[in-house]
Amino acid sequence: MTDPHLASLPSRPLRTAELVAVGSELTTGETRDTNGGELARSLSLQGVGVRRIVALPDELALVTAAFAGALAAVDLVVATGGLGPTPDDLTREAIAAAVGEVPAIDPGQEAWLRGLFERRGIALPALNLKQAWLIPSATAIPNPNGTAPGWWVDRPDGRVAILLPGPPRELRPMWRDWVMPRLLERGLGDGRLVRTLRTYGIGESHVAELLGEPMLRAANPLVATYARSDWLDVRISAVDEVAEDGRVTLTAEDSLAAAEATVRAALAGHVLAEGETSWADLVTEATERAGIRFAIVEAGTHGALGALLAEVPALELQVAHGPAVARDVAAWPVEDEAVAIARDAEVEIGLALVAATDGTQTLLRAAVASPDAAWSRVLDLRLFQHGAHGRFRAGVAAAAFLAEVLGEER
Amino acid sequence: MTDPHLASLPSRPLRTAELVAVGSELTTGETRDTNGGELARSLSLQGVGVRRIVALPDELALVTAAFAGALAAVDLVVATGGLGPTPDDLTREAIAAAVGEVPAIDPGQEAWLRGLFERRGIALPALNLKQAWLIPSATAIPNPNGTAPGWWVDRPDGRVAILLPGPPRELRPMWRDWVMPRLLERGLGDGRLVRTLRTYGIGESHVAELLGEPMLRAANPLVATYARSDWLDVRISAVDEVAEDGRVTLTAEDSLAAAEATVRAALAGHVLAEGETSWADLVTEATERAGIRFAIVEAGTHGALGALLAEVPALELQVAHGPAVARDVAAWPVEDEAVAIARDAEVEIGLALVAATDGTQTLLRAAVASPDAAWSRVLDLRLFQHGAHGRFRAGVAAAAFLAEVLGEER
Repeated sequence: MTDPHLASLPSRPLRTAELVAVGSELTTGETRDTNGGELARSLSLQGVGVRRIVALPDELALVTAAFAGALAAVDLVVATGGLGPTPDDLTREAIAAAVGEVPAIDPGQEAWLRGLFERRGIALPALNLKQAWLIPSATAIPNPNGTAPGWWVDRPDGRVAILLPGPPRELRPMWRDWVMPRLLERGLGDGRLVRTLRTYGIGESHVAELLGEPMLRAANPLVATYARSDWLDVRISAVDEVAEDGRVTLTAEDSLAAAEATVRAALAGHVLAEGETSWADLVTEATERAGIRFAIVEAGTHGALGALLAEVPALELQVAHGPAVARDVAAWPVEDEAVAIARDAEVEIGLALVAATDGTQTLLRAAVASPDAAWSRVLDLRLFQHGAHGRFRAGVAAAAFLAEVLGEER
Repeated sequence: MTDPHLASLPSRPLRTAELVAVGSELTTGETRDTNGGELARSLSLQGVGVRRIVALPDELALVTAAFAGALAAVDLVVATGGLGPTPDDLTREAIAAAVGEVPAIDPGQEAWLRGLFERRGIALPALNLKQAWLIPSATAIPNPNGTAPGWWVDRPDGRVAILLPGPPRELRPMWRDWVMPRLLERGLGDGRLVRTLRTYGIGESHVAELLGEPMLRAANPLVATYARSDWLDVRISAVDEVAEDGRVTLTAEDSLAAAEATVRAALAGHVLAEGETSWADLVTEATERAGIRFAIVEAGTHGALGALLAEVPALELQVAHGPAVARDVAAWPVEDEAVAIARDAEVEIGLALVAATDGTQTLLRAAVASPDAAWSRVLDLRLFQHGAHGRFRAGVAAAAFLAEVLGEER
């Protein structure tokens, strides 16, 4: 792909990054920065080393200094927020000051902005005109969901600064559809390939034991575990192995594939999903493969199972009882309840869950049944988690049980 | 209160702060820093200006430089994470390097740590010994929920650095019960008093209009609005007004009280709660005041109402139907459904909600009824939010409707 604009720039690989979130609502704790973590993950998956994630108040001197510092320290700076129309929104002013340029209204951006407001049937407020600003070294990044275009700023030394609006629904598509493809074209990270295997039903120390120290200490491929509330993730990443003469002796693809095969063999039966798969995704897939619809009833869980599976299209009915029902886990007839809820909802499968949690553990009992009671399966489990976390994990256990049974009944 | 330790230090008021989260899992986006926002909020409520919230990878040079920079720029540095026992955990090493001191095992801390492991019936692993380290200028902060004590580091110029463990369930009680009281005693912030009024059923621009520009532009008391997904918050904060001769002409208390009265009068009927009150809190309070238990049934909302109210003790039964039921919002008999669910659950009140969302809006219909059908109330609403956010807001609307009806029926 030849792009005269890109070709004219020094080819600096973008290997390190700093993320800057601008907004006093962040530093007062009134709202939380969720963009930093998302962008960090996106960049890390490409092998970019994120050196710092920063949130700053709406103060020109602070933001300018942060940009100047970052542009001296890392290859890529991504700033979010502060692109609105008000005097408080000063991210453009700050980057302009940091790179020593002066913003001016860009006729093309102004025409786009005026068109946007015309279609809304209102005159362009004078304040909004700054959203049509550019500096000479900046390219506007189109924003399909708002009035604030982003900026892609090229530095003479090949470094790049990117400004994006703060609202995730504006930022996300701009990042994914416009910025990322161009960053990849420019040469992002260290060519790292990453795969995440989501495991269930096995503890972190047990996983470490099965994988073995040599694998967990190796630099390439890099294998690490992350205990999340819903999954235990094993993340494998690999770069090309290069000999002293520059020859690639093992490609990242091959290295990753070999490590993945080893991990899958070591954790057989526990790797249930990949990447960002949620339990709702997993159950959706299982119900679609089995071609069934289902209903759930739960007690003692504060609706944890329903919350977990709320977005599953095949879920026809969800019922959650208050804690009174769950006083005695063993006494609640989960099989009968599973059959009854499937009948009520007129679906192929019913799932019933009852759980009780105390200060140290959670007891749960779940049943998956067909409404004609032709078959049913019961799960009894004691979880070491308790309280709200225990209830959540009981929901996860029931979802995992449903997916397992659907897989077997296939 | 006289504390010889405090008395010997220069009395530097702690007016500005920087928050530093340490951990490569943050800069790779594998986990998100939630401590920064919480601490920022806690400090901002005291009138401390948070100048920066930073997340850094586990790299000694980066963390040391961040501490050195922060201790030159602000009065108070709070670091979280990196206090574990492994070589990756280097926050102690970094602050020691930044202040030019050498860590050593503290006999008192070591005895505490050994006792902790003895009670667990295991020998103290050699790695964990670093959790008994101190530097001469540091005081250990007890950790009732883990093996990592915090550090309170006094600088000769009166600045303070505080190190806390990353897990929120360890950090929160240490911050609330040990650190905050001592910071307040030392002199924290600008004596600012803050109150948040939570409003519902009124838009942000309408609130701005009713409060008027003079109020929203004044520096003291400071009145600002924050549109959240569930509430529109009006935050009022005030400091003492001081004349040139140092005399207090208006106390923060009086200033805040006057502003609050004005806001409450201007937004009459829309201020439903204060502070951090959730919808579950509000409904819990309303049901307790009314002395009733209730049940809910919803359709077309993916269980949004149930998720919102899951923790309300008076909620006896929650049922959520799949989207098929909600195809025609007007056709679903919400009053009958409310009566039926109350009967099923044998409770005093039933709440039924049906909603349908398209690409631009959400239509909802809700009913609150008593099981003997002695009375019922119906709400019809069109929301401008749509999709998942529209479904969430439909749940909020139904919760607000329930609280309103319970208030009236009292």
